[in-house]
Amino acid sequence: MSLPAPLTGVVPPLCTPLTPGGAIDTRSLTALAERLIGAGVSALFALGSSGEAAYLDDRARRTVLETVIGAADGRVPVLAGAIDMTTARVLDHARTAAGLGAGGIVATAPFFTRTHPVEIADHFRRLRDGAGLPLFAYDIPLSVHAKLTSQAVLPLAADGTLAGLKDSSGDDGALRRLLVEVRRRGLDAGFSVLTGSELTVDGALLAGAHGVVPGLANVDPDGYVRLYAHARAGRWDRAAAEQDRLAALFALTDAGDPALMGGSSSALGGFKAALHLMGVIDCPATAAPQVPLGEEAVKTVRHVLEEGGLLP
Amino acid sequence: MSLPAPLTGVVPPLCTPLTPGGAIDTRSLTALAERLIGAGVSALFALGSSGEAAYLDDRARRTVLETVIGAADGRVPVLAGAIDMTTARVLDHARTAAGLGAGGIVATAPFFTRTHPVEIADHFRRLRDGAGLPLFAYDIPLSVHAKLTSQAVLPLAADGTLAGLKDSSGDDGALRRLLVEVRRRGLDAGFSVLTGSELTVDGALLAGAHGVVPGLANVDPDGYVRLYAHARAGRWDRAAAEQDRLAALFALTDAGDPALMGGSSSALGGFKAALHLMGVIDCPATAAPQVPLGEEAVKTVRHVLEEGGLLP
Amino acid sequence: MSLPAPLTGVVPPLCTPLTPGGAIDTRSLTALAERLIGAGVSALFALGSSGEAAYLDDRARRTVLETVIGAADGRVPVLAGAIDMTTARVLDHARTAAGLGAGGIVATAPFFTRTHPVEIADHFRRLRDGAGLPLFAYDIPLSVHAKLTSQAVLPLAADGTLAGLKDSSGDDGALRRLLVEVRRRGLDAGFSVLTGSELTVDGALLAGAHGVVPGLANVDPDGYVRLYAHARAGRWDRAAAEQDRLAALFALTDAGDPALMGGSSSALGGFKAALHLMGVIDCPATAAPQVPLGEEAVKTVRHVLEEGGLLP
Amino acid sequence: MSLPAPLTGVVPPLCTPLTPGGAIDTRSLTALAERLIGAGVSALFALGSSGEAAYLDDRARRTVLETVIGAADGRVPVLAGAIDMTTARVLDHARTAAGLGAGGIVATAPFFTRTHPVEIADHFRRLRDGAGLPLFAYDIPLSVHAKLTSQAVLPLAADGTLAGLKDSSGDDGALRRLLVEVRRRGLDAGFSVLTGSELTVDGALLAGAHGVVPGLANVDPDGYVRLYAHARAGRWDRAAAEQDRLAALFALTDAGDPALMGGSSSALGGFKAALHLMGVIDCPATAAPQVPLGEEAVKTVRHVLEEGGLLP
Repeated sequence: MSLPAPLTGVVPPLCTPLTPGGAIDTRSLTALAERLIGAGVSALFALGSSGEAAYLDDRARRTVLETVIGAADGRVPVLAGAIDMTTARVLDHARTAAGLGAGGIVATAPFFTRTHPVEIADHFRRLRDGAGLPLFAYDIPLSVHAKLTSQAVLPLAADGTLAGLKDSSGDDGALRRLLVEVRRRGLDAGFSVLTGSELTVDGALLAGAHGVVPGLANVDPDGYVRLYAHARAGRWDRAAAEQDRLAALFALTDAGDPALMGGSSSALGGFKAALHLMGVIDCPATAAPQVPLGEEAVKTVRHVLEEGGLLP
Repeated sequence: MSLPAPLTGVVPPLCTPLTPGGAIDTRSLTALAERLIGAGVSALFALGSSGEAAYLDDRARRTVLETVIGAADGRVPVLAGAIDMTTARVLDHARTAAGLGAGGIVATAPFFTRTHPVEIADHFRRLRDGAGLPLFAYDIPLSVHAKLTSQAVLPLAADGTLAGLKDSSGDDGALRRLLVEVRRRGLDAGFSVLTGSELTVDGALLAGAHGVVPGLANVDPDGYVRLYAHARAGRWDRAAAEQDRLAALFALTDAGDPALMGGSSSALGGFKAALHLMGVIDCPATAAPQVPLGEEAVKTVRHVLEEGGLLP
Repeated sequence: MSLPAPLTGVVPPLCTPLTPGGAIDTRSLTALAERLIGAGVSALFALGSSGEAAYLDDRARRTVLETVIGAADGRVPVLAGAIDMTTARVLDHARTAAGLGAGGIVATAPFFTRTHPVEIADHFRRLRDGAGLPLFAYDIPLSVHAKLTSQAVLPLAADGTLAGLKDSSGDDGALRRLLVEVRRRGLDAGFSVLTGSELTVDGALLAGAHGVVPGLANVDPDGYVRLYAHARAGRWDRAAAEQDRLAALFALTDAGDPALMGGSSSALGGFKAALHLMGVIDCPATAAPQVPLGEEAVKTVRHVLEEGGLLP
Repeated sequence: MSLPAPLTGVVPPLCTPLTPGGAIDTRSLTALAERLIGAGVSALFALGSSGEAAYLDDRARRTVLETVIGAADGRVPVLAGAIDMTTARVLDHARTAAGLGAGGIVATAPFFTRTHPVEIADHFRRLRDGAGLPLFAYDIPLSVHAKLTSQAVLPLAADGTLAGLKDSSGDDGALRRLLVEVRRRGLDAGFSVLTGSELTVDGALLAGAHGVVPGLANVDPDGYVRLYAHARAGRWDRAAAEQDRLAALFALTDAGDPALMGGSSSALGGFKAALHLMGVIDCPATAAPQVPLGEEAVKTVRHVLEEGGLLP
């Protein structure tokens, strides 16, 4: 299914449920996609950071895409993450995704290598030409270790290389300046700016963002769909109240003991533990070598879900 | 003049006008303070980053404080930055400020040294005890090279060590979680959360921030006072429109050629060039060894001011 | 060919010559391998950072390995880089390398993802078990954005998970402490510490390193073989003089204009321009999207080679 | 006492002994200086990082300088750290030091502020002109958060702005390239390159460094004086053996529990605990708000000293 331009609304980055043995749990993944579509999301994003794309080998990635695109069944478009170090490798993933029916590709600037603005522009242009699908730039400095500046993004928006930006930089000041400039140049009808910062969605929509890609929407898609609807209707106080509730719910990403695991393992483990506790997926396992949440942490997740009204 | 608890509203971090010879230009500084008070700000913040505190020797810092406190003349309280590496040195500045009649102290965690959460808590407790004035923690990772976490801040808010936080981290997601937690713990009546991110003030106020400390308010205090008023009255669309205008105005901080100077010199030079072009201060010089803006850059600043409606 | 334990000597990380169209130039790669073996290196390392592994897709990587292993023809062992984000993906590369006859695997800690010491240890243990080949940890913080500490490395050396370390961290102080501790624990007979810091090889060997993996050895293998021989014979002044000469030669990595390209493009472009000028490879192209060296830069490389006695 | 050009040999950065109440313990500081001079060091460096300069207020800094210069009594020159954020503030410290009889000044590039190469050059030129004393650039990226590049240092060495460099960057590859270039330009007779990396002194001297500024020399000055003498006499194997012993001794900087304190507190606490256990200083206290070593940590320090032959 092809993408609307600009893409708007709630676009959850799907978690990737695994079996206890580490294989893709296609039944649970289908159930998760179904739940998100039922909540009213406008597209699905498979193989992002929340989807543990970095941990999945190529075969597993293909299974994920086939499953999500099959589950969506043309009801909503599916964006496919094509996460790899540099152009040639990203293109391999992008072409696979195109062949499987993805509606768009999400790719970062090169990483592991040290790079340069000229190379980043060339990288995205080659990806757009080679993949033949709408391309979203994925700005995630926590992983790529450099921010995509608006100087880098705006020319690529203007010449049609990029269909949009997923901004997971957390730099909402830079996002504001980008949005003001996108509108000033008349690009906002075709270039979609999506915030990946799930804690400031009300502010981002107030600032003019087109949509949101919140990892936490795996757990509470209805909350983000409500938040988005309040914002679009100008009910900013209710949008803020919903965002506050979701910000409190975000505590489930901190359940892991920092002495035993990193923040990423804790967050991804928290999402999956919540989905498991809520009965959406069969097994809360995260991919190796991530540290699994301990019993105490799972209790914390349960408690946060109860406080947030997501478990009785 | 003593501080209200919590401190709210617009609290501009004053630029420090200099003479061509590098001395404090007390006439211009008084004029700047007068202009800000006239615009309706709720307090003044002297000797912050926008005030080039790091570049001023102790004598100059004292002159700045005397001048600003004299200009305020009891109409609004004056916060004093006490910027130094560690506790004993910060305390020296804080005591000077207390003696001169400052209403509160703004201090960072230790820097230059490598530090630890236990030391940071001890640092702020010693500052609060030693200075005898309300204490604001200044979270500015660009300078201190570490973020003040909410785990660090919340206990110090709860036990009265901190009267507030100036959050110049740009991490609005962390700010949102902090605000939710401050309210959940019932601390928001006494602990003031001020955003220093001048580009997302509408979102921060929507999220419940008490006020804002925008460097750009040196140039356009009326804009920030209007933005604040719109937000407090629930006119969020108008608040956002005002913020958009201010975000476009922020382009004056980028006027300097990045091949010739750093971003900080460009921003501080841009503020001062604007104040000079608008007739508020007599000389646009920044403190040595910062690189001064060239002619082209000053033209850009003028153009941005004209576009923003601040110059005819 | 299997690896000696510990591996010692000069182990060049081979550049990957490309055709003008971007394919692997197997003729030139064979010639390069032949030249290095002829100079007396003790092993070859294919698909490292100097080999642009991050830029090569899986098919190209396989071609590189086949070519280098074929060229070595059992005369020296071949280490294969298995550069990817996390365990499952690295294992795919490692198994391919094992199938092609590599003598050992070189892998980093997880990257792109945020990780934790417990996960890093688990990662290397799974790699060792899954690949069935001697495993070298690759410490390259410039790419991985975290240093492999000696606390992480020593237990993995002691239990046989790691056959060695390629230290490209540039932190020679940490290297010294590691070497002292490796000997104190009696691990130095089986665990090989190789420095990747081509500018301090004399000091690293004086400190007890087993060998060296210098990118610059693509250009001047004889120099590094002489340096190694001087050091092993205790001729430290001659080793230092040779190292000084090689440090001057390293200027060829800086030939690219920093306004036009990043340091990595300049360095890899410099190696390849040198090999091309010296007639070892047919085409100096680096992989997309790297910026190629301009004419001026190639002149600089030629000049440096002439000064270093490598071109008449 | 004026400095020789170039300055060579062992130049310990003195610890600053404190009384239990936090005042400068001038008796212990004199004893420490006496011990170091007796061991044969070539100069003393007061108010560096090892001297906790960042933690001392101006009065305490003055007391330290008076004490050390008095203790030296013209037998060796005294370098004075002038550690502060920017030019005007550093100059205040530098002038005080000049007035007290220091032989040279050691200063970093600006910190806390964001800066630019042009500003850094201007900074050092103003310091040299204003202080009227030989000036050493202090490269300590762990504190300043940027490295002093050789592009920055070489012109300042060539025009006489800098009398030397104290390189605490730990980047021995960059140090090697700098040394090669200093000699190529004929600057090594007047410009002194001192390594602050106490774990690679043998390699740095082999590379041509003029001397060394090792914090650990507070604890074992004889070891560093022997190491220096071996190196100067070309006895490289004995130099390396001495360096190995000192690298093992360096374990006393790790005695602090990382869950309770930062690495800096542990290192400075370890030096002082060692000096106290050896009877050189009266009290092991470090300046607030650093976390003091616990009993277990002090036991570890004692054990390391015993293993290193410094306690019976």
